[in-house]
Amino acid sequence: MSLLVVGSLALDTLETPFGKREYILGGSATYISIAASYFSKDIRLVGTVGYDFPEKELKYFESKGIDISGINVNKTEKTFHWHGVYHTDMNTRDSITTDLNAFAFFDPLISDKFSRSDFVCLGNVDPVIQGKVIKQLNDPEFVMIDTMNFWIEGKPEILKDVLKKVNLIVLNDEEARLLSGENNILSAAKKIMELGPKNLIIKKGEHGAMLFKDENLFYVPAVPLSTVIDPTGAGDTFAGGFIGWLSRTQDLSFENMKNAVVFGTVIASLTCEDFSVEGLRDLNPEVIEHRLRHLKAITNFEIPNL
Amino acid sequence: MSLLVVGSLALDTLETPFGKREYILGGSATYISIAASYFSKDIRLVGTVGYDFPEKELKYFESKGIDISGINVNKTEKTFHWHGVYHTDMNTRDSITTDLNAFAFFDPLISDKFSRSDFVCLGNVDPVIQGKVIKQLNDPEFVMIDTMNFWIEGKPEILKDVLKKVNLIVLNDEEARLLSGENNILSAAKKIMELGPKNLIIKKGEHGAMLFKDENLFYVPAVPLSTVIDPTGAGDTFAGGFIGWLSRTQDLSFENMKNAVVFGTVIASLTCEDFSVEGLRDLNPEVIEHRLRHLKAITNFEIPNL
Repeated sequence: MSLLVVGSLALDTLETPFGKREYILGGSATYISIAASYFSKDIRLVGTVGYDFPEKELKYFESKGIDISGINVNKTEKTFHWHGVYHTDMNTRDSITTDLNAFAFFDPLISDKFSRSDFVCLGNVDPVIQGKVIKQLNDPEFVMIDTMNFWIEGKPEILKDVLKKVNLIVLNDEEARLLSGENNILSAAKKIMELGPKNLIIKKGEHGAMLFKDENLFYVPAVPLSTVIDPTGAGDTFAGGFIGWLSRTQDLSFENMKNAVVFGTVIASLTCEDFSVEGLRDLNPEVIEHRLRHLKAITNFEIPNL
Repeated sequence: MSLLVVGSLALDTLETPFGKREYILGGSATYISIAASYFSKDIRLVGTVGYDFPEKELKYFESKGIDISGINVNKTEKTFHWHGVYHTDMNTRDSITTDLNAFAFFDPLISDKFSRSDFVCLGNVDPVIQGKVIKQLNDPEFVMIDTMNFWIEGKPEILKDVLKKVNLIVLNDEEARLLSGENNILSAAKKIMELGPKNLIIKKGEHGAMLFKDENLFYVPAVPLSTVIDPTGAGDTFAGGFIGWLSRTQDLSFENMKNAVVFGTVIASLTCEDFSVEGLRDLNPEVIEHRLRHLKAITNFEIPNL
């Protein structure tokens, strides 16, 4: 089934304890669509880049079967540029510069073909934009969004309006607490689902992810990694793996959403092992399957007789 | 098989967002031995209390099948008293007072019978004491210890000497990083195991626990709770459930240690749902089994076909 991905396309400068990379591929829609491409074969990407965006990266998207006709190339602005520096613990980072450039003018017009997409993933952008995209959709089967503290604090009412129109929101534990006003994670989940989405994923970084669907809960740890080179985009990669699997299988049951969470978890772990999208660029499906079996092996258990 | 538990016995004053309780049962050996009593039937408790320790609590230990002949009652000192106040997020707390009282004179002499225990769990006490106890043991099958930042920073060499003589150490992720000097949790685990113990458990609080045994890894999330009343003693309860299951089954295989971790996880979650040991006092085995099934249901998954 078709999958529409809307979000940022960026050139990042990243510094981690493992080195520095300048103006390399980044942005939420980048990670989401590449991750999803390993599962779904009809991906439509909507975003905006500047005149400096490398032609070879556009070609790379196409090589992954991603329809880039929805990418607007701004002839007068540069591409969105983010410069981040990670601390030695890799769990915290400082933003050095955030140059919106072309992204400041992002106001996507969804083509007729794209508007008829079955599955939709809206990356972390201004909820005003998310709302405008949703209005242009033509009876989608499943819409998921990401968001962040900045929008929860800055535009809570607009975000809550968007939440009434989506099937799933993915956020991290800190954001879930902020959005719900609840410290307890189960209470936070309940309150967020009361705002609209029947499905919720709370990401906990290196501690894993929790899926909530109606009364059901699934909780999977992140894959422990001996070397984390660059965690940028791990959450977006998770979202891409998740929605990619859902759109491939067209099965919205809780059991299949668990599968989607597991694939998201696995592919997110692969992202962290190299800078930018390098860990994702040319994945062999066997690598994904191998890590999936590893995740099952280290987390699943049998019930002993008491 | 017999299980020797050595650690603190205390009367705690606890303040959480759910209320305040004064001079209620606490201490590492308390939680460890009560948790273990649901699995193991031959538990020997070694600790010290003051003249104010309630007779009914000594009787309670006995009612759980715990041999209290190793509890020394100090006639001139009060019982160790700790006063803690939890913040609203329940993950952080302030120590208001720590009155060691009788515990300041804790220097256990292990009886001949107790010295022949098969399994031994040394709660978080001064590594000097842990070392002295280990010297008195007569060919134990399995010795595990807990420790904390205070000893890792204050007596690192003595602690490292103790580590050469134990089969397992349990500590939290922050302590593991401190002891190993490694940020990455897998690297930290490797370094700690090089110090001696062939088995390691890294607790991550509400994020679960990781078991390392040789090259094997098991990672289970904590049971998500809708209400956490008082997390005091959760880590000790985990340790008690773990060693209780091991001593019951006498099976030191990785598969059975996974079971022990699961039982520790389940029983620790029950502790958090009430003040002090109240969540543990009169547990029905069916409650443990029910929660075990819940934990399996929310964490286990099948491998989908890619």
